[in-house]
Amino acid sequence: MNQASASRVTGLPFILGLALCVLCAVKLPAARAEGALPSWNDTSAQQSIVRFVDQVTRPGSPDYLPPAERIAVFDNDGTLWSEQPMYVQLAFALDRVKALAPQHLEWKETQPFKAALEGDMKALAESGEHGLLELVMATHAGNTTEEFAGVVKDWLATARHPRFGRPYTELVYQPMLELLAYLRANGFKTFVVSGGGIEFMRPWAERVYGVPPEQVVGSSIRTRYEVRDGKPVLVRLPEIDFIDDKAGKPVGIHQHIGRRPILAFGNSDGDFQMLEWTTAGGGARLGLIVHHDDAEREYAYDRKSPIGRLDEGLDEASQRGWVVVSMKTDWKRIFPAGGSAARQ
Amino acid sequence: MNQASASRVTGLPFILGLALCVLCAVKLPAARAEGALPSWNDTSAQQSIVRFVDQVTRPGSPDYLPPAERIAVFDNDGTLWSEQPMYVQLAFALDRVKALAPQHLEWKETQPFKAALEGDMKALAESGEHGLLELVMATHAGNTTEEFAGVVKDWLATARHPRFGRPYTELVYQPMLELLAYLRANGFKTFVVSGGGIEFMRPWAERVYGVPPEQVVGSSIRTRYEVRDGKPVLVRLPEIDFIDDKAGKPVGIHQHIGRRPILAFGNSDGDFQMLEWTTAGGGARLGLIVHHDDAEREYAYDRKSPIGRLDEGLDEASQRGWVVVSMKTDWKRIFPAGGSAARQ
Repeated sequence: MNQASASRVTGLPFILGLALCVLCAVKLPAARAEGALPSWNDTSAQQSIVRFVDQVTRPGSPDYLPPAERIAVFDNDGTLWSEQPMYVQLAFALDRVKALAPQHLEWKETQPFKAALEGDMKALAESGEHGLLELVMATHAGNTTEEFAGVVKDWLATARHPRFGRPYTELVYQPMLELLAYLRANGFKTFVVSGGGIEFMRPWAERVYGVPPEQVVGSSIRTRYEVRDGKPVLVRLPEIDFIDDKAGKPVGIHQHIGRRPILAFGNSDGDFQMLEWTTAGGGARLGLIVHHDDAEREYAYDRKSPIGRLDEGLDEASQRGWVVVSMKTDWKRIFPAGGSAARQ
Repeated sequence: MNQASASRVTGLPFILGLALCVLCAVKLPAARAEGALPSWNDTSAQQSIVRFVDQVTRPGSPDYLPPAERIAVFDNDGTLWSEQPMYVQLAFALDRVKALAPQHLEWKETQPFKAALEGDMKALAESGEHGLLELVMATHAGNTTEEFAGVVKDWLATARHPRFGRPYTELVYQPMLELLAYLRANGFKTFVVSGGGIEFMRPWAERVYGVPPEQVVGSSIRTRYEVRDGKPVLVRLPEIDFIDDKAGKPVGIHQHIGRRPILAFGNSDGDFQMLEWTTAGGGARLGLIVHHDDAEREYAYDRKSPIGRLDEGLDEASQRGWVVVSMKTDWKRIFPAGGSAARQ
């Protein structure tokens, strides 16, 4: 626009148009929660979140942080989606054993594969950590990274939860989807930091959570770069690379993010060190724990559960200032309306 | 704004204000290079870059990609900053040996430390890979991640390049700083993918390159989470975790980014697989190589250099469609004006 034409359009309406656009284009500096967390009840849990976001985003606040430092980390299993009656990734591994069984006739007579094929969870548990590892390697390794991502997507498109009958990607927690979006609208970068496999989450985390692959941290197996018939591939090897759980979570966070988060959300003692590491930093910090206390709408479990055990976290939450979020009283609803998260 | 007030301001000036703002707020869809790459000569190298950015960002282009998929990766040593006469990180390690020597009197008589203390590069080279590894572990491990970041920052604040007499963070390539900014202005996410230590780069990459810690990929040693006197720390262990070089680069890229880049820029055969992996993907891809052919303004080296050897890359660039960027003819200037990158 040259000076002459600029002067022709100057005036109040032009200024108003300009102001309106600036308001739309620039993110509102202070935290806005009205309408942003509709599935949260107006309890102290929601208030803690809104207060914290206001503290770190309001210009002039003593705890103000620039967007680059607004890092929020979320556990996945039991924090963003259901982990009962078994980890989704275990359900995937069991189905995968069945799919691959025709190429492995010996599995009919070999544990832990026999147990997996027969759905004998007791025998499977008895195969111990070694048995589970064998199962994971047989079902997660041996193909390329692109092939594996395809297998995960295909499985998720058809697999259904045994109790709710819905795709697993619809059994994500609606209040958490809203929280992720609310934080991002306030300049946060949201990461998933899970004990689950990084490559099991990446194929759908962007679509379902709005979290791109580079913001997913998880356990991993090694890969090897190869050129096959002139085409480079990354081959998944049957060797553990990293276990992103318990004391591994701060290690994984540092390796991937390189900056200490200011907000961490978990649900089990596997998240204890992640919350500890996050909330031990200077300035305003927020640690939160989902407490599964809603058997009717989801599941109720904590101190004695073999999956997602929450014991130390419950004991220490109060003295450490961590917020325990009750599914039953803090959340209006648990899952999104049918079909919304199932689109491929 | 309610309907009544909206109708009062409706009209051409308002619409023009609105349109102007939309133009300002939304990133310009098509690539704009005018003024964005002032340190690049108007040669085919610059034209390749601008054409590629236009291809992937112009709506309607058959190669258009949404911003989430605009991933660009850059090697560091020799691509973003000078790597001669020795890798900056080696200069750091040698200075660190001197700083730590009073606590290790035995180093006076033990290789490779004796060689490091005496500046005997021949003896140092003779200590081989094992010697270098010992040197790295003694100078890079044993402290916490926060302590190490402080040591790196302190060293960079005072260390000077032997030939140019400037801080190493000022010996970054001005044309590359412009390219990083130009790509980001066109919706790209820029990553550093270096054979150098990830924790050696993160303390300054954001300030100097505009690349945040979570977008730095590099070699690493293991860390362990510990609580010391109630304060959690990550302790750096003297064990290699990952070497992000050669065939390790696609592995590191996949581990950290989880998505294949569309643009890769390197300078040595250590970057070969990174360029191969990047440019083997579908759609528009761009591979680029800095050719150090300017002994006057920087250094001239390629096929026979022990540091940053470029041999296979030169042989194959043409048939693979990779752009070889000549420092001498494609770059107007090499380094930023004095002082600009030295601020802490």
